Amino acid sequence: MSSFEDLGFCKLDIDREARTGYPEVIFGQGKTVEQVRKIFGRLVQAHGRALVTRATSEMAKAIQADFAEANFDDVSRLLSYGQSTRKYKGKVFVLCAGTSDLPVAEEAAGTAEWMGCQVTRIYDVGVAGIDRLLAYRDKLQEAQVLIVVAGMEGALASVVGGMVRRPVIAVPTSVGYGAHFQGLTPLLSMMTSCAVGVTVVNIDNGFGAGYSAAIIQQLVLEAGAQ
Amino acid sequence: MSSFEDLGFCKLDIDREARTGYPEVIFGQGKTVEQVRKIFGRLVQAHGRALVTRATSEMAKAIQADFAEANFDDVSRLLSYGQSTRKYKGKVFVLCAGTSDLPVAEEAAGTAEWMGCQVTRIYDVGVAGIDRLLAYRDKLQEAQVLIVVAGMEGALASVVGGMVRRPVIAVPTSVGYGAHFQGLTPLLSMMTSCAVGVTVVNIDNGFGAGYSAAIIQQLVLEAGAQ
Amino acid sequence: MSSFEDLGFCKLDIDREARTGYPEVIFGQGKTVEQVRKIFGRLVQAHGRALVTRATSEMAKAIQADFAEANFDDVSRLLSYGQSTRKYKGKVFVLCAGTSDLPVAEEAAGTAEWMGCQVTRIYDVGVAGIDRLLAYRDKLQEAQVLIVVAGMEGALASVVGGMVRRPVIAVPTSVGYGAHFQGLTPLLSMMTSCAVGVTVVNIDNGFGAGYSAAIIQQLVLEAGAQ
Amino acid sequence: MSSFEDLGFCKLDIDREARTGYPEVIFGQGKTVEQVRKIFGRLVQAHGRALVTRATSEMAKAIQADFAEANFDDVSRLLSYGQSTRKYKGKVFVLCAGTSDLPVAEEAAGTAEWMGCQVTRIYDVGVAGIDRLLAYRDKLQEAQVLIVVAGMEGALASVVGGMVRRPVIAVPTSVGYGAHFQGLTPLLSMMTSCAVGVTVVNIDNGFGAGYSAAIIQQLVLEAGAQ
Amino acid sequence: MSSFEDLGFCKLDIDREARTGYPEVIFGQGKTVEQVRKIFGRLVQAHGRALVTRATSEMAKAIQADFAEANFDDVSRLLSYGQSTRKYKGKVFVLCAGTSDLPVAEEAAGTAEWMGCQVTRIYDVGVAGIDRLLAYRDKLQEAQVLIVVAGMEGALASVVGGMVRRPVIAVPTSVGYGAHFQGLTPLLSMMTSCAVGVTVVNIDNGFGAGYSAAIIQQLVLEAGAQ
Amino acid sequence: MSSFEDLGFCKLDIDREARTGYPEVIFGQGKTVEQVRKIFGRLVQAHGRALVTRATSEMAKAIQADFAEANFDDVSRLLSYGQSTRKYKGKVFVLCAGTSDLPVAEEAAGTAEWMGCQVTRIYDVGVAGIDRLLAYRDKLQEAQVLIVVAGMEGALASVVGGMVRRPVIAVPTSVGYGAHFQGLTPLLSMMTSCAVGVTVVNIDNGFGAGYSAAIIQQLVLEAGAQ
Amino acid sequence: MSSFEDLGFCKLDIDREARTGYPEVIFGQGKTVEQVRKIFGRLVQAHGRALVTRATSEMAKAIQADFAEANFDDVSRLLSYGQSTRKYKGKVFVLCAGTSDLPVAEEAAGTAEWMGCQVTRIYDVGVAGIDRLLAYRDKLQEAQVLIVVAGMEGALASVVGGMVRRPVIAVPTSVGYGAHFQGLTPLLSMMTSCAVGVTVVNIDNGFGAGYSAAIIQQLVLEAGAQ
Amino acid sequence: MSSFEDLGFCKLDIDREARTGYPEVIFGQGKTVEQVRKIFGRLVQAHGRALVTRATSEMAKAIQADFAEANFDDVSRLLSYGQSTRKYKGKVFVLCAGTSDLPVAEEAAGTAEWMGCQVTRIYDVGVAGIDRLLAYRDKLQEAQVLIVVAGMEGALASVVGGMVRRPVIAVPTSVGYGAHFQGLTPLLSMMTSCAVGVTVVNIDNGFGAGYSAAIIQQLVLEAGAQ
Repeated sequence: MSSFEDLGFCKLDIDREARTGYPEVIFGQGKTVEQVRKIFGRLVQAHGRALVTRATSEMAKAIQADFAEANFDDVSRLLSYGQSTRKYKGKVFVLCAGTSDLPVAEEAAGTAEWMGCQVTRIYDVGVAGIDRLLAYRDKLQEAQVLIVVAGMEGALASVVGGMVRRPVIAVPTSVGYGAHFQGLTPLLSMMTSCAVGVTVVNIDNGFGAGYSAAIIQQLVLEAGAQ
Repeated sequence: MSSFEDLGFCKLDIDREARTGYPEVIFGQGKTVEQVRKIFGRLVQAHGRALVTRATSEMAKAIQADFAEANFDDVSRLLSYGQSTRKYKGKVFVLCAGTSDLPVAEEAAGTAEWMGCQVTRIYDVGVAGIDRLLAYRDKLQEAQVLIVVAGMEGALASVVGGMVRRPVIAVPTSVGYGAHFQGLTPLLSMMTSCAVGVTVVNIDNGFGAGYSAAIIQQLVLEAGAQ
Repeated sequence: MSSFEDLGFCKLDIDREARTGYPEVIFGQGKTVEQVRKIFGRLVQAHGRALVTRATSEMAKAIQADFAEANFDDVSRLLSYGQSTRKYKGKVFVLCAGTSDLPVAEEAAGTAEWMGCQVTRIYDVGVAGIDRLLAYRDKLQEAQVLIVVAGMEGALASVVGGMVRRPVIAVPTSVGYGAHFQGLTPLLSMMTSCAVGVTVVNIDNGFGAGYSAAIIQQLVLEAGAQ
Repeated sequence: MSSFEDLGFCKLDIDREARTGYPEVIFGQGKTVEQVRKIFGRLVQAHGRALVTRATSEMAKAIQADFAEANFDDVSRLLSYGQSTRKYKGKVFVLCAGTSDLPVAEEAAGTAEWMGCQVTRIYDVGVAGIDRLLAYRDKLQEAQVLIVVAGMEGALASVVGGMVRRPVIAVPTSVGYGAHFQGLTPLLSMMTSCAVGVTVVNIDNGFGAGYSAAIIQQLVLEAGAQ
Repeated sequence: MSSFEDLGFCKLDIDREARTGYPEVIFGQGKTVEQVRKIFGRLVQAHGRALVTRATSEMAKAIQADFAEANFDDVSRLLSYGQSTRKYKGKVFVLCAGTSDLPVAEEAAGTAEWMGCQVTRIYDVGVAGIDRLLAYRDKLQEAQVLIVVAGMEGALASVVGGMVRRPVIAVPTSVGYGAHFQGLTPLLSMMTSCAVGVTVVNIDNGFGAGYSAAIIQQLVLEAGAQ
Repeated sequence: MSSFEDLGFCKLDIDREARTGYPEVIFGQGKTVEQVRKIFGRLVQAHGRALVTRATSEMAKAIQADFAEANFDDVSRLLSYGQSTRKYKGKVFVLCAGTSDLPVAEEAAGTAEWMGCQVTRIYDVGVAGIDRLLAYRDKLQEAQVLIVVAGMEGALASVVGGMVRRPVIAVPTSVGYGAHFQGLTPLLSMMTSCAVGVTVVNIDNGFGAGYSAAIIQQLVLEAGAQ
Repeated sequence: MSSFEDLGFCKLDIDREARTGYPEVIFGQGKTVEQVRKIFGRLVQAHGRALVTRATSEMAKAIQADFAEANFDDVSRLLSYGQSTRKYKGKVFVLCAGTSDLPVAEEAAGTAEWMGCQVTRIYDVGVAGIDRLLAYRDKLQEAQVLIVVAGMEGALASVVGGMVRRPVIAVPTSVGYGAHFQGLTPLLSMMTSCAVGVTVVNIDNGFGAGYSAAIIQQLVLEAGAQ
Repeated sequence: MSSFEDLGFCKLDIDREARTGYPEVIFGQGKTVEQVRKIFGRLVQAHGRALVTRATSEMAKAIQADFAEANFDDVSRLLSYGQSTRKYKGKVFVLCAGTSDLPVAEEAAGTAEWMGCQVTRIYDVGVAGIDRLLAYRDKLQEAQVLIVVAGMEGALASVVGGMVRRPVIAVPTSVGYGAHFQGLTPLLSMMTSCAVGVTVVNIDNGFGAGYSAAIIQQLVLEAGAQ
């Protein structure tokens, strides 16, 4: 049984890095600045690095007062300190369909990078202008894992899924309007994709996609090491 | 005000051909064989032709007893007699994503043909194997109207929509399972398509798509004639 | 394969006019003023005209600083510069059910006009006072394409659909309350319309309807020219 | 406090006629033939009449063995014995949109008749061919209550609602397919009708509509009698 | 065919009073103050009275500048001028389940009063404390029409429906949280009520309920006069 | 850590009785006759009793071949052998709204009895005839736990909840049609009940309600014994 | 029949304590400060204590002006005065899955305490780090009733349900995003829990859970006293 | 651009093995026996192996007449011929929550095996009896990829996700009833899992999960080979 640490308002899973390869990551949304500050500090102390997703600029300021080198990216809303000690050799590709999907794509990319992945970004390649994607078809073969971020109808996942021999992680986004229902439509669409090798994470969950890509990279590394 | 004819159980819109260019079409589902037989007979008498959609083989037998030349196609479930006196010059393309979408695609194609269109069929070109569609990219430019029939996530409509300068009518189908929800997913997906120039009809409504394509052809003909 | 231009944050489909007859249109929502400004500038340079939908007054100010003649309409929220070089002869009718549907109707009308269509507006003709619509019944026959914009239960599309021999493009709007569910009800209602020849676009998608009408007009022109 | 009678498997509301003007009506669906037989017998004994909705032919046979004059109509699936002692002077109109809505329309009509109403049927007047309805516009003014039965998108309720000065009871039906979702679409559509004076009952609930119409007639009679 | 008046942004149904007994009522939501002011003025001119629902205090101020006697009630948000010339003898009861349902209940009550009804209000009689309702059981028998307004699970409609011999119009409200889904739950619950004689209007549609009650009263009056 | 037994196709939780007071219960639906037979046999061996819910008559025959005294009730579809060694003193009341809710009510009652409860059944007391319920109001005070089973709009739970000082477990049933959506409506309705002290289990889950009632009884017994 | 008191805008159920063991509790949301003040004052007068849920700080100020000892907790948003005269011996456990579920958990805990329960809080024990929960497994056996509060996918309820012999009351929370749909997902998930002995209350309904736990405690006390 | 082969009713993607590492797999559902027979034959000819999912026993008979060694498993409904030439060293674990999830779990396991994976099955370890899962906790660490199959509320995915450092692919199943909505509930639940490293495929899509696991294994192999 692994151990944890009780901060009063939360139970910190300090043992997590040993167990899964990575320390706990803080989901900033719905937490107070003070709660984030305390958990962040304790994580840095235990692991030498920490990551907050969906951070606010207030959280960034508070953390940077404690850790001057902490970095806040206001597109992805990732607030990070330190980095993975490992650097994976394989490449994780992050594709997105439109300009408005960028925050989610960057959350995926930034998470994967913080976890030690090399990330290649290919943005604004939605299927309505298929030539933009086709121009990268050969390049896509270099990827070991692909993350496809798309709002609207989410068709990009199916098209990419059919082009590659590698796992595709699809992220529906809340970008759209009307019958898009805040991302329900691309979620369902990606779920029922006619392409194989596509798995799906929650709406706007760039973090989850980046994390899953990184543990596939971790597997590749550790399996090779065995 | 246009006139109609009361058959007791229904009010036949005999004036319809004068008004819209085409006689009423019988929606077979939910009607009795006898009801279909009576309406069919009266329509042939008035217009020299008739069409039943979602016909059953029982309806076909009953109608063929009255009109030996009536034709029943058991894939599209169209039961027809006679044809349009007009033949349009433009081409209507019917594309479908998978083998299982065929009945709906054929309903669209058969309806358009009965209404005087020239139909080109391009089937099983779902986006998971994008090369199948790309092989027809040049040919697609010959179309005046395109009907795209797809189940699963319905991504084909978006990809085709981005390739052509002509109206695309998308038909979601009930082919799929799980999160596909009997066609709700491709319906929503086509609705929120990132491609412009795409309009959508009801789930499995091949007839409606074929009909809409035909009246665009009628417009082309009549506008040219003006 | 058609070419595109990489602006860093987006991939501009400069080839689009050659391919589809019209340059790319900018969906303003979710983009920054600066992003819109850059794309707009590049589009004007390439095509001599540009259109932004769902523009804000901030975007308008920024664009008008660059292009004094750019026009911003705060009902339709269309921000445009230049016009189509083509003027189609046929008429596109835009009907709406109620006063509150006006912004969507104007988006449809303005888009179609910018694309070269002649638009006739018939507003506030919802079916609860059917005489308002009946008064225009003869006039409706002049239309080559009809766009029907309606919130609430969206019944106008079915009634108009039964009156004309031309394609009807239905636009459900988010105008309503309660069981209207932000436009889901008229969307479903228009989808299941008992009238034939009706196709549907996304909730509040006046732009999409105007665009589809314009490419039908383009077809009529080019088919006549063949 | 009113009394009831315990049949073991159910508690019969014998007092109901005194309280509401009408005896309990048996909802046949989900009951066994024997349960229906017992309740029916007891109701006839207490009130001299009885009505079963959604009856099966098996129920009909069992009841007719006990009460030879019991009547079973296999379109409406109403199984009845005896009649209301009152005959209302006003007219209840039952309209339906299409041929397939007939069973529900007949359930409404038959219920209202059994309860003492004079019913005028106007069937197959869906709005896609608006002239069929307009032909009856003057006649509609004779109605004291109107029941509008419609599947598909249910638009008929809104159009009728705008034509009359009398209460309209709308009944969505499960007739349709695809985005119709077994009647959810006309239910929502009727709920959000742009016409005033329209109230709605459950999908396929012809009985409820007929009952409500009858108690409005009862009110007219009793209010006049006061 | 009845006539209407074109105000540019809307088509006023001036003929409506002759046709239905009541002038058009203005739905304030989604209209500008100026639009409401113009329509209001024209309606007062034509009919000597006018009513706005979902009015804002800004609308009230503008209207009261033109018509000093116009009355604005900020609970029901009804803005009215003048009154029905008719006064019905029967009583309309408005019941509501909880204190928070009051605005909708008052919209129903105020509408019915403006239309000439005598209204009895019985508020905060939700079924969780059934004795509050039972205390009024005898009194309920005086009603000619009952309007039941309820949020949460909407059970009040079923209980009242079983107690009276008169039509019950149920109004679900958006009062609730969680699985209440902004009124969807009481709407569905009232739709599937086990009580007969209950019909339903849209969520928060107090106006519609008041209107329907008033035209039943109008029927009682006019039917008696025949 | 508690132990389990591997039957190959399933892992039997033999330790469960020690842990929770009751042996595992077999959910018959979706299991083969042979699977049920094996698990049943092993459970009887270990605990001297066993219960199958949603059993079929085929399962009953197979089990009774092994255990002649096994009992099958074809209303509740409970197949049981042996009984609880404990008999609780308190009373569990099972109420249901209509005759068609009986199978679910009996599943609840039979489960509670098998677990040692004394059950009082009060059936067919739906709120549309509130006097049937009021007749039992005093008697309800004898209950220690109340299970309320209702389909349609599920209003009975709210009314009962307001009458008693004891926990009410509500069970929505799939009995209804149209806007009832197979039990979703009473589920949501019971969830948003205006009465306190009401908790809810899954649609048609009579077993779960009976089980929860029994462990409250177990608590009463064991707490008294402490 | 129990009595109530009419405050004009509401009917106070003064008799409630005698009937159910507890006075009415005020649901603050949707009420005005003045309404809450009046009801609160009257309740204190009648019962010597009062509780408001979902109170605002404005309400707190107004009440504390009247009753200086009134207590407001801004996490749970409970505003209370006085306490239960009874103190139950059994323990109610409140568990929550994450830090963000705290306000709902505290509403449950605070309600139960105000009603006389002894509450043990075990927070931040979500199943993604199962060891946090396992660390409390033995301690959980001390509980007489368990309240499990969880957002996201709500899995904690199933795991806890399988560990204990006591009733588990599950509270889904609106904490989550995307496919979580404001709590619908954990609500459905808890409803379909594979664990027995779990019942569910509305999303974010900490009060309801606390109340239900308290009346189970009341039952234990009163049953022991019999 | 890759090539395909036109069989008339479908376009076979013969090039697929070169592109993705695996030949096309036939989705049997919705295809005729003859269609499956033809595609199967052509695939065996091209690749020396073939797989049909959701096969029927009729398909099996027809295929086995052509290929005597073809194997049909009637639990997973997989119909296969030949095997992958590669055998991966890593282990794929397939876990399922209950006995009824077995067909989906076996589809996942059988697919992965056919594609060259070594599969370890751990069945009936649903979280309601958490000890069954905990007994395998150490063993789970041997997995390179984990597939978690669960119906009901799908909580198993979250618990497993928190225990391992490897990718978890979650498969919701249609096993359940009531608020489970044919698998929608576990789908949403898995989507919103509080555990990281979990991605999701469509309801009952065991094949998709097995395929995704296999291409992760392929990546491990090929990445090691680079």
